This record gives sequence, C-alpha cells and structure tokens, in this order.
Amino acid sequence: MGIIFSDLAVSADGYATGLNQTEERPFGDVDDSWLHNWMFDAYEENKAEVDAIVTSGATIMGRNMFGPVRGEWDRDWRGWWGPNPPYHNPVFVLTHHPHESIEMEGGTTFHFITDGIERALELARDAAGEQDISIAGGPRTVNQFLTAGLLDELRLHITPCIIGAGERVFEGVPPQRLERVSVRATSLVTHITYRRI
Amino acid sequence: MGIIFSDLAVSADGYATGLNQTEERPFGDVDDSWLHNWMFDAYEENKAEVDAIVTSGATIMGRNMFGPVRGEWDRDWRGWWGPNPPYHNPVFVLTHHPHESIEMEGGTTFHFITDGIERALELARDAAGEQDISIAGGPRTVNQFLTAGLLDELRLHITPCIIGAGERVFEGVPPQRLERVSVRATSLVTHITYRRI
Repeated sequence: MGIIFSDLAVSADGYATGLNQTEERPFGDVDDSWLHNWMFDAYEENKAEVDAIVTSGATIMGRNMFGPVRGEWDRDWRGWWGPNPPYHNPVFVLTHHPHESIEMEGGTTFHFITDGIERALELARDAAGEQDISIAGGPRTVNQFLTAGLLDELRLHITPCIIGAGERVFEGVPPQRLERVSVRATSLVTHITYRRI
Repeated sequence: MGIIFSDLAVSADGYATGLNQTEERPFGDVDDSWLHNWMFDAYEENKAEVDAIVTSGATIMGRNMFGPVRGEWDRDWRGWWGPNPPYHNPVFVLTHHPHESIEMEGGTTFHFITDGIERALELARDAAGEQDISIAGGPRTVNQFLTAGLLDELRLHITPCIIGAGERVFEGVPPQRLERVSVRATSLVTHITYRRI
C-alpha cells in the first residue's frame, strides 16, 4: 500500500501561503516567487523533488487550494491550473458545499467531498490502489492530516525568506517528535523530509 | 570588524523555547532534549557548530535567557551555568532593572544594560574589538535584533520535533528575503545558516 505524503513550500518562518487570497493571487499577499521560484527557475536542479510532488495515484486538497470561491459555489471555477491540471488523477476537494465532479483534460477529475478528511482519504485510497496519496495543500489541510496522525511523510521545501503572516505548517498540530528522513540543499531551497514516528 | 551572529536551536515549527519558564526548567514546558540533544549526545558530530556558538568576543542576551527572575532583582541569581559559564567574555544582559556587574570564573562577566539593544551593541562592540559578537538568545532578543536589521548571521539548528507553543524565531520580524549561506545535516539536527541581504 502506498504512503500518504504532502509537499509544502514554506518560508524560513514556516508560512506556506499569505493572507488575503484572491483569484489573481492564489498565495495572497505573498510574492509567490519567494516560495516557488525554485520549481521554475531551477527546475533541472530540483527535478526529483518537483516531479515527486505530482507522483501519486490520487490527490486531496482543501477548498482554498482549489480556488478563491467561498461559501456556495456561485460561479464556475475549475481550479487555478487551466484545462489540463498537473495532477492527472482523481483530486478530492474538501468543502462544505456539494458540487458535481468536474472532469478535466489529462486524467484529472475534481471530486467534491463534504464529509471530512477520513472520507476523502477512503475515496482516495480506493482511487489510488497501491499508489501513494498526495495531500496537496494548503497548509490548513495538511495540518488537519498531521493532527489526525494520517500523514506519513511531510516534505518541506524551505525557501530563504521571512513572510511574517499567513498560514503556517504545523499550526495547531500536537507536540511530537518526528523522524527526519532526508535533507538536500540546492541553490534556491532546502528540502527536508520528515516522517511521523 | 567582526560580525553579529546568533545561534538558535529550534523545532521544525520554529520554537526556540516553550512556555512557563521556571528555575528548574529554563526552556519551560518543552522537553529540553528535543531541542538540544544534538549538542550533548552527538557533540563530536556537531563539534564545529557547537564550538562556534561560544566563539565570540562579547555576548548579548535577554533577561529570560539569563535567568527566571522577573521584575526587580529580589534574589541572588548568577545565571544557569554554574560558577564558570561557557561564554568566557563580557555578557551584556538586557533588562529594565539595574544591577551591578557580576564577575564569574573563566572570564565571563555579566553586565546589566537598561537602555536597549543599540547601547548593548555599542558596549559589546567595544569589548569584542575585532572579534564577532554573539546574540545568545532567547528568541525574543534575537527577533529584536533581526527586526532592527542588526543581525548579520542567523544559524538555525533545526531539530525534528513539533513543539506547538512558546517563543518562535522570526516572530514579528518584517518580511524579507534572506541569503542561505550553508546547510549541513547530521544525525540529530539540520544546521541552516542565513545572512541578511
């Protein structure tokens, strides 16, 4: 059986996203390049880590990671990623508001789950078979899985900046020791992988 | 002229100390070994980083790092470190309450500075000559120097644990990019050094 993993690009102070998300700014008040330039400007150097992010049999994400729409689904929204999202597998979006599944190009289908992370995980497990399951984010969703003891592996991609406000990895997660599985530094980022003990 | 540096052992979620400091528990509710076992249990492996912590010509620390006494100095207190503290140089303690200097064995003298970090830095600079100045902690004091743009180099020693409450590095420090100077992983800790840009 595959593992449940998550990748988060975070600042040195642990923020994975800023405040005030809008359609134009998925990461809110943060300069997106501070957190993510290593994925684009230095793709070759970080190829292993970047490719691993979308190597899973199913994906789970929070609603804010899916889009800026809040409350009822009062407009058409199909994610930030255009017609062919990078997931290429079933993506289970956590929400309080039911929505029909949306089939995209390239094998990505967004399913909307209104009854919590355990149910999303059950469906993701069915969809993934023997493959891994990715908790794509955002940080609040990752923290929910950490708190529930359901995340096997957390891969932090720590970028050299201070953001100062937003949503942090580990916020509200109970005290615990972790196993540090690996560390790799490239020019723009420090990759650290933790596993739960 | 030397640089101004700081070393902080922090959890994966950025805490350098827990809540509720007492004389018996300098780091409060945190199991001290979660943050510092690499310094003792794996000294040889981390010798370079451990030795660098106390390689300076002068030291500055906050009052809580010096001791658990709050408000007026209503009892005799000479630090947590016994008669021969590891600093072996002049240590300037930031406080709102005047106190006579305390000379210890081995070259450490505690001086008590009541007029802020710039004044402490001035005195430390005089004492250090061409040598570096260490901002020994705690995190609130380090954050004050970071906020004032007075810290040249921050050496984080990140330990694989979640602490969840206490005092965090970078708290309240303005958003900024940093230069990541080095990364070194040993079995119990990940050393990351940042410099201000």
